[in-house]
Amino acid sequence: MLNEFKALISTSDTIIVFRHLDGDGDALGSQWAMYYYLKEKYPDKEVYAVGDDTDGYRDQFEKPHDIADEKFKDALAVVVDTANIDRISDQRVKLCKTIVKIDHHLDVDAYGDLEFVFPKVSSAAEIVANILRVFEHDQPLSEKVAKCLYTGIISDTQMFSIAGVNEKTFKTVAYLSESNIDVGKICRSLNAIDLDLYKFRIAISNQIIFDDSGLAYLIISNKTLATYNVSHSMAKRNTDLMKNIKGIDIWVLFIEDKEKPNTYSASLRSNEIVINDTAQAFGGGGHNFASGIKGLDEEKLKELIKELKTKL
Amino acid sequence: MLNEFKALISTSDTIIVFRHLDGDGDALGSQWAMYYYLKEKYPDKEVYAVGDDTDGYRDQFEKPHDIADEKFKDALAVVVDTANIDRISDQRVKLCKTIVKIDHHLDVDAYGDLEFVFPKVSSAAEIVANILRVFEHDQPLSEKVAKCLYTGIISDTQMFSIAGVNEKTFKTVAYLSESNIDVGKICRSLNAIDLDLYKFRIAISNQIIFDDSGLAYLIISNKTLATYNVSHSMAKRNTDLMKNIKGIDIWVLFIEDKEKPNTYSASLRSNEIVINDTAQAFGGGGHNFASGIKGLDEEKLKELIKELKTKL
Repeated sequence: MLNEFKALISTSDTIIVFRHLDGDGDALGSQWAMYYYLKEKYPDKEVYAVGDDTDGYRDQFEKPHDIADEKFKDALAVVVDTANIDRISDQRVKLCKTIVKIDHHLDVDAYGDLEFVFPKVSSAAEIVANILRVFEHDQPLSEKVAKCLYTGIISDTQMFSIAGVNEKTFKTVAYLSESNIDVGKICRSLNAIDLDLYKFRIAISNQIIFDDSGLAYLIISNKTLATYNVSHSMAKRNTDLMKNIKGIDIWVLFIEDKEKPNTYSASLRSNEIVINDTAQAFGGGGHNFASGIKGLDEEKLKELIKELKTKL
Repeated sequence: MLNEFKALISTSDTIIVFRHLDGDGDALGSQWAMYYYLKEKYPDKEVYAVGDDTDGYRDQFEKPHDIADEKFKDALAVVVDTANIDRISDQRVKLCKTIVKIDHHLDVDAYGDLEFVFPKVSSAAEIVANILRVFEHDQPLSEKVAKCLYTGIISDTQMFSIAGVNEKTFKTVAYLSESNIDVGKICRSLNAIDLDLYKFRIAISNQIIFDDSGLAYLIISNKTLATYNVSHSMAKRNTDLMKNIKGIDIWVLFIEDKEKPNTYSASLRSNEIVINDTAQAFGGGGHNFASGIKGLDEEKLKELIKELKTKL
């Protein structure tokens, strides 16, 4: 299958790398790694990385490329970290000639002509790293490519702390670190937050609701966001605030919708209890231990909390 | 040198493993790994792990062994993670026949008859892992031993986020993960905190002082500790509260002494600025980017803050 992928790359003059909407560290890391790799290896091809302009990762990644519609026709699309075609950032992916899907979410939408989907792997970046490792016959990648992939892996594994991190993850990271990346620095850069955002975190920490059953949740309103001048996408990165508390087995971050007041998005997390099924029942999805739901009104929000409590 | 170590083990009927006072994850992880390894390999020998009873790691490690003075005579002492003989927990180490020192602090006190001191290595556990790897000719360690060593490495490297983590660290971890340890679970267990302690963290977060020059510090009084019913040794584990804030290059946690009011211990941390020299000037020591000082009165505390500001 890797040979087919290689053949597709060789025969395409234009290659466009896609990822999901509102890209996180893994989506962006996998995308930019693939972009830099292709640029380095095939200097004569046109290579692009497209999608919405995600804030919050300005220190790590470049801005996406702004390209004309005609570039997509006849292009090879490489889509990383995206389960459903509708969630691909830049729907012009549908204009492309061929689609290669590289993902680690549950395989719900087989939209690729060629697919590398491994739901048990920690991150899309881990899959990309191992594909490139085969392409390179175990030789180290460039520092730029390795840095993006390491960023992706530590983002999605929350610094190797989630279930699913295993021997293979560390073997992959040991391979990436052969490229002499400064792993401590990458980690610090990714985790560094502004003092204002830090103070926002302290403020919202005071508002976490702890339920005796082992559930914690936090509702961030538009009003709170306005008070601290924090964007919705930055707010979303605070789910980890409720992590690591003994006796808390499921935690949820609710954020009020910017456009629709009293409507909430939910980020569900757990250590070992599968919550993806509940997320799907409420119209969301994701991973077994990390899922998302959008457009919950206040009634649905309460229903979700009630439903999650039945799991504890 | 490893052959000499092996010969010492072979010829000793009693082996006692030591570490520093108020053991942290690395000291305890290295100590218990060495203990379990020796127990497994040499079931006919008497092997012990001694020291003060450190709270805060009850979920990870057993209680130290309580042994009689006569056991120390003729014993081989293996001391991990301790720079100075005076900081070894259980000074009966001085009764032992031979001392093997395994450490990654700056080499200020060559108290060992045989020494494995590598100040550039991330943790004592990383050194122990590689010694045992040679002993085992690259075959995996037992799960019990690997778990202790992984705990040690992630403790001292703060989940691989400090300067000094490199290719070798990950190669060591990849080797340890061959023992099928559940790395995500170990990490979560180590980072899990009680809800009461979590609320204490939120409370003290509100008291952090941010200095415009790039210094942050936090003074925890005996009164605050009493209010939240938190022990001194648990309080000491909150230095990371001030980590990862953009613009903060040095941070210090001061904790009032239980016995001597208005006297403080200080935990100094930085990302890239050497602070060990300042710590030494105030009677403390440790690593380049992580040092400690004891017995600072209020005047000295102010002087230290002033001195650290000159580094920014």
